[in-house]
Amino acid sequence: MIFRRNLRPYLGQGCSYFRTCVLLAMGPAILAGRVALADPLPSWNEASAKQAIIEFVRRVTDKSSPQYVPPEQRIATFDNDGTLWSEQPMYFQGFFTIDRVKALAPQHPEWKDRQPFKAILENDTKALVASGEKGVLEILMASHAGVTTEEFEGIVRDWLATARHPRFNRPFTDLVFQPMLELLAYLRENGFKTYIISGGGIEFMRPWTEKVYGIPPEQVIGSSIKLKFDIREGRPILMRLPDLDFFDEGPGKPVGIQKSIGRRPIAAFGNSDGDLQMLQWTAAGEGPRFMLLVHHTDSEREWAYDRQSPIGRLDKALDEALTRGWTVVDMKKDWKKIFPFQ
Amino acid sequence: MIFRRNLRPYLGQGCSYFRTCVLLAMGPAILAGRVALADPLPSWNEASAKQAIIEFVRRVTDKSSPQYVPPEQRIATFDNDGTLWSEQPMYFQGFFTIDRVKALAPQHPEWKDRQPFKAILENDTKALVASGEKGVLEILMASHAGVTTEEFEGIVRDWLATARHPRFNRPFTDLVFQPMLELLAYLRENGFKTYIISGGGIEFMRPWTEKVYGIPPEQVIGSSIKLKFDIREGRPILMRLPDLDFFDEGPGKPVGIQKSIGRRPIAAFGNSDGDLQMLQWTAAGEGPRFMLLVHHTDSEREWAYDRQSPIGRLDKALDEALTRGWTVVDMKKDWKKIFPFQ
Repeated sequence: MIFRRNLRPYLGQGCSYFRTCVLLAMGPAILAGRVALADPLPSWNEASAKQAIIEFVRRVTDKSSPQYVPPEQRIATFDNDGTLWSEQPMYFQGFFTIDRVKALAPQHPEWKDRQPFKAILENDTKALVASGEKGVLEILMASHAGVTTEEFEGIVRDWLATARHPRFNRPFTDLVFQPMLELLAYLRENGFKTYIISGGGIEFMRPWTEKVYGIPPEQVIGSSIKLKFDIREGRPILMRLPDLDFFDEGPGKPVGIQKSIGRRPIAAFGNSDGDLQMLQWTAAGEGPRFMLLVHHTDSEREWAYDRQSPIGRLDKALDEALTRGWTVVDMKKDWKKIFPFQ
Repeated sequence: MIFRRNLRPYLGQGCSYFRTCVLLAMGPAILAGRVALADPLPSWNEASAKQAIIEFVRRVTDKSSPQYVPPEQRIATFDNDGTLWSEQPMYFQGFFTIDRVKALAPQHPEWKDRQPFKAILENDTKALVASGEKGVLEILMASHAGVTTEEFEGIVRDWLATARHPRFNRPFTDLVFQPMLELLAYLRENGFKTYIISGGGIEFMRPWTEKVYGIPPEQVIGSSIKLKFDIREGRPILMRLPDLDFFDEGPGKPVGIQKSIGRRPIAAFGNSDGDLQMLQWTAAGEGPRFMLLVHHTDSEREWAYDRQSPIGRLDKALDEALTRGWTVVDMKKDWKKIFPFQ
């Protein structure tokens, strides 16, 4: 108390050096043990979503809490498209696919007259949509298979280095959500293992998730095509085959989690109906659970869409979140900042 | 030197207290920085295999070494059957399968007259072998599918708690190799992430690998059957379907590694031709590599088999190891102890 009283005059009169000023101002609080650590989620507004996250992390990491969870069970799974980065006007892997078909076209003169390739080469969206699921699958296989895993990694890296998002004219990996980057880091600092569980291609994500999200390749789960081991010119290779192996979307997500992790997450983060089963699977485990949906509500800084959107539809999952009390992030209200560059 | 000279008389005359004695004896060595840390591989004889392991670990962990490998890239993959535990007179999962068919038989009266089930119920090995690959697959599906992932985990745990190996009359998880347990721990202490890459069933292994090997479920890769997400009585489940999803053996091992880890191991450990492609894939990466085969040469303490064995055949992989200078462990000569209980 004497110390505090003694300091007051200095604080009131201003300090000549900023650093001294801060130290003096904090002195009493430090002594009293009342200084909070730096805010781990500075891009989140002080509202219920942020509070719910921090309260959950406190409950499962505090050894004296009845809901304490040992670190090895702190598994947190994140959808990617629309949850960690944007997904409009189409999944970013769609831009990659189109660019790849165009890059391969000179080796495939027959594509000029063949749908759905013709549609891509002529930027004919109507014909592309008309080709349906079968057409999309055919394009995906033509653009993602026929190379080794190492070659494909290089192709993805090269594309990311030059491709730009049409609205923001920036690399696609700039369009990640700053509040989610903070959340990933905050969970990891608290002993969580963070995973991506995405409908996107696993080998489309792995070349950049470690650098961008701090998530290493072995913690990325996604859709995949079949691989074949072979020896080419005396060297072992893994060739990517034009044959779907696993579709990690909707009911595929809990399957992907079980296949690759073998334990149930205690926290799951998504943004669309394609994440519903992952959140249900997470919620159904015993002990403390945390389920969160990112609701895209900000057409100015990002996009606003939900129940009617062809990409990232959020309808049934939103109803279930509201019914069951899962956390729903209102991007416009909850996030001070959307992208790191804003 | 004065200190050392002064101590000699005491050491020569014996010490009244053992602890004092040891401290006095070690004093000069401690001062000279010449005390080695405790031997990390005490069950390994001082021979070339042990030296090769220690030398490799030193090279990749010493920051001043030109072959230094950052911790996140220190991926080590281990086969299970015959590499971490025994596999004779048949893969231990075979015993589980037979016991499971017998346990399910009352619910399947038709099995009494239907091969290959009849063969199992009558302990008719000849008829079982005659049923071929198709018969084995049918038995595997009948005994491993039709339950949820959670139910299956309980079934495996219950079986392990009561089943005994016919030769040693001990739980199967007692038949793990003490030198390999030490190797796993030693690698992990040196920043390696240790994985199992097994032809065996992934969900047959996960219930016990953490306790027995210190390998968590998310670092176990194996063969699998398809899973289906469903809601049963309002609760999400994953049902195990009688349909092979992935066969993690031979050329499947590098595929399984790529699917689940997404990076190439720098060290790989196996014991049979089914591990050859994993070792080739590991060897073909850039930078320092370590490939090791366990050669079963000890019919007294364990089993002796290689080129002609129907289980765990080691033929082509042994030739390749000898040609390329991979480390081959001679169990009889290299291992002081095989099982922890011996």
